[in-house]
Amino acid sequence: MRPIDTLVYGIGLAGVAAQAAAGVLEAGNKRFDLFGMVVVALAASLGGGSLRDMLLDRQVFWIADQSYLVTALLAALAAFALARVMRLPARLFLLPDAIGLALFTVSGTQAALALDAPWLVASLMGVITGAFGGIVRDVLCNEVPLVFSGALYATASWVGALLLVALSEFGVAHTWAALLAGSVVLAIRLSAMRFGWRLPVFRARM
Amino acid sequence: MRPIDTLVYGIGLAGVAAQAAAGVLEAGNKRFDLFGMVVVALAASLGGGSLRDMLLDRQVFWIADQSYLVTALLAALAAFALARVMRLPARLFLLPDAIGLALFTVSGTQAALALDAPWLVASLMGVITGAFGGIVRDVLCNEVPLVFSGALYATASWVGALLLVALSEFGVAHTWAALLAGSVVLAIRLSAMRFGWRLPVFRARM
Amino acid sequence: MRPIDTLVYGIGLAGVAAQAAAGVLEAGNKRFDLFGMVVVALAASLGGGSLRDMLLDRQVFWIADQSYLVTALLAALAAFALARVMRLPARLFLLPDAIGLALFTVSGTQAALALDAPWLVASLMGVITGAFGGIVRDVLCNEVPLVFSGALYATASWVGALLLVALSEFGVAHTWAALLAGSVVLAIRLSAMRFGWRLPVFRARM
Repeated sequence: MRPIDTLVYGIGLAGVAAQAAAGVLEAGNKRFDLFGMVVVALAASLGGGSLRDMLLDRQVFWIADQSYLVTALLAALAAFALARVMRLPARLFLLPDAIGLALFTVSGTQAALALDAPWLVASLMGVITGAFGGIVRDVLCNEVPLVFSGALYATASWVGALLLVALSEFGVAHTWAALLAGSVVLAIRLSAMRFGWRLPVFRARM
Repeated sequence: MRPIDTLVYGIGLAGVAAQAAAGVLEAGNKRFDLFGMVVVALAASLGGGSLRDMLLDRQVFWIADQSYLVTALLAALAAFALARVMRLPARLFLLPDAIGLALFTVSGTQAALALDAPWLVASLMGVITGAFGGIVRDVLCNEVPLVFSGALYATASWVGALLLVALSEFGVAHTWAALLAGSVVLAIRLSAMRFGWRLPVFRARM
Repeated sequence: MRPIDTLVYGIGLAGVAAQAAAGVLEAGNKRFDLFGMVVVALAASLGGGSLRDMLLDRQVFWIADQSYLVTALLAALAAFALARVMRLPARLFLLPDAIGLALFTVSGTQAALALDAPWLVASLMGVITGAFGGIVRDVLCNEVPLVFSGALYATASWVGALLLVALSEFGVAHTWAALLAGSVVLAIRLSAMRFGWRLPVFRARM
């Protein structure tokens, strides 16, 4: 692999690990047992990409390359073990999680573009890859998904995905388009957390 | 396209729009943000057909034809915008939603029959296409799915789907079979809403 | 079919029936109507294998062979009818359900191994086949999935699946490997229910 590919691959694994660990922390508060937490962690970290691959009829990424599954399992077990001996603030996982969101968005959008999906579909695949795992995690924990009311989580993903589609359309080289779009996702997400940005909330007059 | 195909296609888009708008109204009551509502709307309007296509290993319909996705998005945004300035009664969407249910049932069943699925499987695909979106919508909103206790929603779909399978088996022309089965779904659903018909409820002796 | 295949096929159908009946009992407590219960029963009994087949890109098992769908439907209707006239203790279904878990674990793992899936993926497919149906059932009923805190349900499945992968790796004949792994699943699950074994629970220090 070229160094840039190795870097992207490594960040992808780090994103999987961060989302798995975050899944363990949420599931732990529900008094799940060890296995329940592992399932939630796997669903949170691998669910988005799995749905993308099933929708696009590609081979599911963690079946093609077992490293993702191993990484998610190890991260979940490590978070479980650590949380029994020390206090793990949920914030610890926010930065790698945001990096993972940026990378999943880019990889999901590029995978769809490579299969000649229409532009809106391609951007939605980026969002699904980035955000669906967190939705499944919250549904399994019987919570209303945080993604739906959190600080521009999926919105950041969609903006970056649309930017990536546009850059590809205008012929920008893949590597630069990916770097730029990923940085935009990261910047929006981190700024939204820092400054408390939110989308307008629906006020039904009923 | 022949006029009848254009009509069916148009009604299909209207059904998608109605289910997307109904998704926005439900999600709004949960104080989701704009993006959360869009996700619920997309899941409600496209989820049933997506599951059908993944189960049957066909190309997912809104990936093959982006119009469905665009329609669902626009309907969700319109319902969101409208609901901020005026009172949108949920009943407004019941008629197009019932038409959409009838059409989704017919298209789902026919898609399965075209792939030589067994008769019971084909009828279930009609029900999944028609009713699964509403189930996902309610699960995402952390509610017990209304479909499970509502006025003959999925039951109407199943009766129509079984009728369509039987008509096809007896050699009735596709167009007539589809029209008849769709009308039966619509008639049962509207009558059930009007007269409060319900299925027997389970009384466990425990 | 050879006698052993007939036996395995029969036990598989019995497992589907037991999980469908258990789904009816849970859904009934939520005051779902008849159709809602049927949907929950189908999701509980067919959901795990469906997800496995979609992830592995195989034809979905109940679409390829309608017997599973018919069995699940009949079992759900029978449980519904019986529960209206007599008291059905939930424990009645625990033994066939455990047998079904063992068989689903074995069949799911073998299906993945036959497609040359990596070992950890193959074992996870066994667990998904065995345990995912119960997760979907509980999510549809708006409950935190029991699998996550129950008596070694999915854990028994995973241990058996890993054993099956190891036995296959060491060249043990398929039939013997399947029998041994299935027995281990059954033994762990029944012992855990009998003696109240549980996995450690997460104690977050937050």
